[in-house]
Amino acid sequence: MMTLFARIVLIAGLLSAGAAPALAEDGYDLWMRYPATTIAPDSVSVRGDTPMLRVAAAEVRRALPAQAGAIVLARTAEVADLKLPTATLGDEGYLIRAVRLNGRPVTLVTGNTDRGVLYGAFALIRQRATGAAGDLTSAPRVKLRVLNHWDNLDGVVERGYAGRSLWDWWTLPDYKDPRYVDYARANASLGINGTVLNNVNAKAESLSPRYIAKAAALADIFRPYGIRVYLSARFSAPIELGGLKTADPLDPQVAAWWRAKADEIYRAIPDFGGFLVKANSEGQPGPRDYHRTHADGANMLAAAVAPHDGIVMWRAFVYADTDPDDRAKQAYTEFKPLDGRFAKNVIVQVKNGAIDFQPREPFHPLFGAMPKTPLMMEFQITKEYLGFATHLAYLGPLFAETLASDTFAKGAGSTVAKVVDGSLEGHTLTGIAGVANIGDDRDWTGSTFNQANWYAFGRMAWDPSLSAETVAREWAAQTFAPAAVAPAVAMMMGSREAVVDYTGALGLAHVMATGHHYGPGPWVSDLKRPEWNPVYYHKADKRGIGFDRTKSGSNAVAQYAPPVAAKFADPATTPPGELLWFHHVAWDRRMPSGRTLWADLVGHYDAGVAYVVGMRTRWDTVKPVVDAERWQKTASFLAVQQREAQWWRDASLAYWMSVNGLPLPAGVAPPPHDLNWYKALSFPYAPGNPQ
Amino acid sequence: MMTLFARIVLIAGLLSAGAAPALAEDGYDLWMRYPATTIAPDSVSVRGDTPMLRVAAAEVRRALPAQAGAIVLARTAEVADLKLPTATLGDEGYLIRAVRLNGRPVTLVTGNTDRGVLYGAFALIRQRATGAAGDLTSAPRVKLRVLNHWDNLDGVVERGYAGRSLWDWWTLPDYKDPRYVDYARANASLGINGTVLNNVNAKAESLSPRYIAKAAALADIFRPYGIRVYLSARFSAPIELGGLKTADPLDPQVAAWWRAKADEIYRAIPDFGGFLVKANSEGQPGPRDYHRTHADGANMLAAAVAPHDGIVMWRAFVYADTDPDDRAKQAYTEFKPLDGRFAKNVIVQVKNGAIDFQPREPFHPLFGAMPKTPLMMEFQITKEYLGFATHLAYLGPLFAETLASDTFAKGAGSTVAKVVDGSLEGHTLTGIAGVANIGDDRDWTGSTFNQANWYAFGRMAWDPSLSAETVAREWAAQTFAPAAVAPAVAMMMGSREAVVDYTGALGLAHVMATGHHYGPGPWVSDLKRPEWNPVYYHKADKRGIGFDRTKSGSNAVAQYAPPVAAKFADPATTPPGELLWFHHVAWDRRMPSGRTLWADLVGHYDAGVAYVVGMRTRWDTVKPVVDAERWQKTASFLAVQQREAQWWRDASLAYWMSVNGLPLPAGVAPPPHDLNWYKALSFPYAPGNPQ
Repeated sequence: MMTLFARIVLIAGLLSAGAAPALAEDGYDLWMRYPATTIAPDSVSVRGDTPMLRVAAAEVRRALPAQAGAIVLARTAEVADLKLPTATLGDEGYLIRAVRLNGRPVTLVTGNTDRGVLYGAFALIRQRATGAAGDLTSAPRVKLRVLNHWDNLDGVVERGYAGRSLWDWWTLPDYKDPRYVDYARANASLGINGTVLNNVNAKAESLSPRYIAKAAALADIFRPYGIRVYLSARFSAPIELGGLKTADPLDPQVAAWWRAKADEIYRAIPDFGGFLVKANSEGQPGPRDYHRTHADGANMLAAAVAPHDGIVMWRAFVYADTDPDDRAKQAYTEFKPLDGRFAKNVIVQVKNGAIDFQPREPFHPLFGAMPKTPLMMEFQITKEYLGFATHLAYLGPLFAETLASDTFAKGAGSTVAKVVDGSLEGHTLTGIAGVANIGDDRDWTGSTFNQANWYAFGRMAWDPSLSAETVAREWAAQTFAPAAVAPAVAMMMGSREAVVDYTGALGLAHVMATGHHYGPGPWVSDLKRPEWNPVYYHKADKRGIGFDRTKSGSNAVAQYAPPVAAKFADPATTPPGELLWFHHVAWDRRMPSGRTLWADLVGHYDAGVAYVVGMRTRWDTVKPVVDAERWQKTASFLAVQQREAQWWRDASLAYWMSVNGLPLPAGVAPPPHDLNWYKALSFPYAPGNPQ
Repeated sequence: MMTLFARIVLIAGLLSAGAAPALAEDGYDLWMRYPATTIAPDSVSVRGDTPMLRVAAAEVRRALPAQAGAIVLARTAEVADLKLPTATLGDEGYLIRAVRLNGRPVTLVTGNTDRGVLYGAFALIRQRATGAAGDLTSAPRVKLRVLNHWDNLDGVVERGYAGRSLWDWWTLPDYKDPRYVDYARANASLGINGTVLNNVNAKAESLSPRYIAKAAALADIFRPYGIRVYLSARFSAPIELGGLKTADPLDPQVAAWWRAKADEIYRAIPDFGGFLVKANSEGQPGPRDYHRTHADGANMLAAAVAPHDGIVMWRAFVYADTDPDDRAKQAYTEFKPLDGRFAKNVIVQVKNGAIDFQPREPFHPLFGAMPKTPLMMEFQITKEYLGFATHLAYLGPLFAETLASDTFAKGAGSTVAKVVDGSLEGHTLTGIAGVANIGDDRDWTGSTFNQANWYAFGRMAWDPSLSAETVAREWAAQTFAPAAVAPAVAMMMGSREAVVDYTGALGLAHVMATGHHYGPGPWVSDLKRPEWNPVYYHKADKRGIGFDRTKSGSNAVAQYAPPVAAKFADPATTPPGELLWFHHVAWDRRMPSGRTLWADLVGHYDAGVAYVVGMRTRWDTVKPVVDAERWQKTASFLAVQQREAQWWRDASLAYWMSVNGLPLPAGVAPPPHDLNWYKALSFPYAPGNPQ
């Protein structure tokens, strides 16, 4: 424990050694921008001494300003005589309350477990940093709150736009970068309690002894912060690592190999979380290679980790090379019949929509359709389809929109959130996963505002009922000076809708360029498999545009519960934002706006661009109150976003006009180049696209 | 200009906003670890106002401690009345002297040009930081002091072990990372005046308008720091970018394409330095594809940049797929006949040795052999063959050893340094290139001690006569607290020799594993081309070991001047450190040490490992005086180095014993595994090895 004087001396020492660059506001601190003059360490006392309680106390001492008052951290058992209402806290919840202890008024942070105390400590810090006050009780509504890192063993992050992998696999386990601790702190501050270290497109080597030792080193660092390590498992690892001739899940040798492998992992990582598996999707091996079901594959792995209380997260993101059916239907078609067939420690991980993390998708039809199976939500925090690192797009509204969607599985009010938190169908194994946007960039996520998406994911995984705006405000208050908070929140709140608008509104999807997914490519039609081509998804022709997923088309609407199916089956009741997802609609159809579909679509493109212009204007107003480095980077990125939004709009309009032959509405600026100019653009070194 | 008060307020502001991690000693500041309480800004005055003088003054204000006294920066023309001895300063040199100006005693920093003043400013900072004092005069002995970045456009650095490329090509030119300025400051502090931004294994796209704009943005940032930007040019770019059918250097269309391309580049970068070219080497295109000579290729490019005062750096690192001759001879064989055939603005860039940056190589026979051609030295700062980022190997002794080698081209004293600085043969176009070890790792070079190699390269490029120990001491004094300087220097000085010892001493070369070059692979013999195989280089058999390069072998010795050739032709006069480079020697040959060759070789392996153990012990002693983060990282890396040195030793001995059937000398520990165990190790994700 350090006295205040020692702290001042320490700071002075650091200062005298460090040059200005190290002091710059480079975004490294995330939302944990603590004051330099902090609470007198002896104002914080802890009952008990465990690694987790120690880090909780250290964080409070580091974070709270001098006037914070006396604070006590203790498990509920230590303060039983206070008879606090702790029953609802479960094993992760916390309670913060002003109480008297030994006759002294203190702020008590308590929970039934060390973990509850840890989360309470961070909640107290957040409460004080956002200017809130008063008693606080909270318990997470979802059990597994997990980041998925699509990080390859060579350091490349698939769909990563924030530098290389944070894991320096090469120097692990010998060198433990202090940054690993800060990663754990940031996650713990949000209640994230798990991390899958490697890409779902997994290499078998990640399960080799050498890499298990590396994962174990990270697990040791993360453990006091309540974060469990998981690994993506390559289904064919028994062949590649074990020398077996098959990876058939019903082969006893295969099952034995996985059991031994799990035992080996648990010897190194006693609290290992389990496996995440992408099987029989986009070229990955899986049980169907042996004519077995996904349940066969998942259950075999589940049996291997069950003795250690591990779980298997089995992804539902599958579509077959050969299946001619609507791609949006295939996951449901394959998984729905397996409901009730999965082992108890399997949870099926379902993307928020049925295609692939588009700027807007209707909720995935599997939610509500597999009542006997725990379903885990998979969001994408990294912005593969929403402008990479440079575009400002706050994803809180996207997360909230999906979670609030009503599946009608058990009548009105059967929201996706209730499926995910288990309350609708009575599951206790529940989870939300987010594909991380984190890399080794100094600011972690490639931009300051991308930090908000990590933050929002964590907060909404803890409590799916939080509003996107509440979370935005919380984040901004911890990230910027007070005068910048309202402008930042105003920019954020409409930003995702702006991306929808300038990339393709009204339910359009998958209209981006091929491979790297950077920029527009609605014209692409020459790729081998039909569902690789944007024209497959928008089906624009002279007459109209959109994918008919009603009875007259693929009938994907029938995968939803009847009230939802009925709503989506009729263009008149389909929300305009999802219209072209479900219907092929005439260009001259009259929209609720009073304009034709074509005019409305054009209007959305222009609105999207205009929103970005508005964000730039607003950002200019906060220049005096934001530090120069973060302000300048954001300003540069907004300029990129405006140029690219305009490019999306111009290229898309040039293409639609080549298809529909329609003139632009009066007063609308024509694209400055012809279609061929846009088609000729190429970006061989776009990031996030491992070869 | 900031008052002292404003500075204090600024620091307080930064402190209150920043949390502890940003203050940590993470190595970002390099050797520019300036005091927090700096000189009163009005103690520094500048005569004249140019961007370069402004950054010079800003650096002095930022760097010097409060008691620095009055300092004046001025070009010599501004202080002509002092009649200082400025004639020898040339256009980059500086003079620092205590003078009276307007009756006031001041420290004058002057030079004939802004650039001289800039280098003088950094020299003053270095002088004060190392505790030196007094008048100072210096001018660089070499004109082009250039970093070569082997950075690919996708961010991967070939043979880079310090993260991704520092250039974020994707966000350039829009976003200008403040780090680019710090890169320029670090280089300017050493006198480095050029940087080749992209890999010699070049992509044509780096010459496209989009990438020229990105390079121009960097050039704008670097310009005030005296750093010119160069680009590696892909010889076939006229085909790939220009749509021509040929890249034949004698084709008028090809020459016209390059002239137009050069004009385009100079419009964006008026002080563009020129092109670096790797042609007809390791699969790169070049003039020999059209049956033209390297001179034909270089001169055609030289003509394109000549109107803009640009130059061409043409690499001599060539060896042909088909040439059965000793690889070590091929560059000489191909380039020697071209002496006198190169245009005036071409400089031929020659690696320090004839193979490829091995831990030790005899100096390249081209030095001294092309008197009519300026030859540029190419050193490798990144440690491709010396342990990647983790091994501590100070390269100052390697640089010094090569530069001090005597070519005897014009009799005794014709050192490589005199060839390189032009004094031996009267060249004014002179240069030293270093393959950079810089990436986006927080500490720039992957480890604290690797920073010393960047530092040593820059200082010795300025003055090739500087001793490695002087430079080491200078660097350590600016990097560590005083009590750590002597131990650090002691560790550094023998560290490169230790790598030679534990990887293969006595002139062994190219005995590393294939592809990534990580770890030992002396047994490799199954690669397609003979000279890809380590067995080609060591030629170990039952009888002896080493490559006979005398008359009875490849006669590579004949490429050296007669006195040198005679020395290398006889095992008795060949330095023991180069013995096996030139001779196939019996295992039982008696060495100067009195031991047999075999016993001597074994002794070197053990000495190398022992040196690393000694470094660890010494590093432990400085723990109290080195900040925790840098101490711990270095300690972790030294542990890796010890383990890997032991591995090199064990695996190599296991292999040599399998060849020579000899027992180990008495008391020597046998390798703990058999040879097959070492052969089976594989490292598919070793860094620095782009696929």
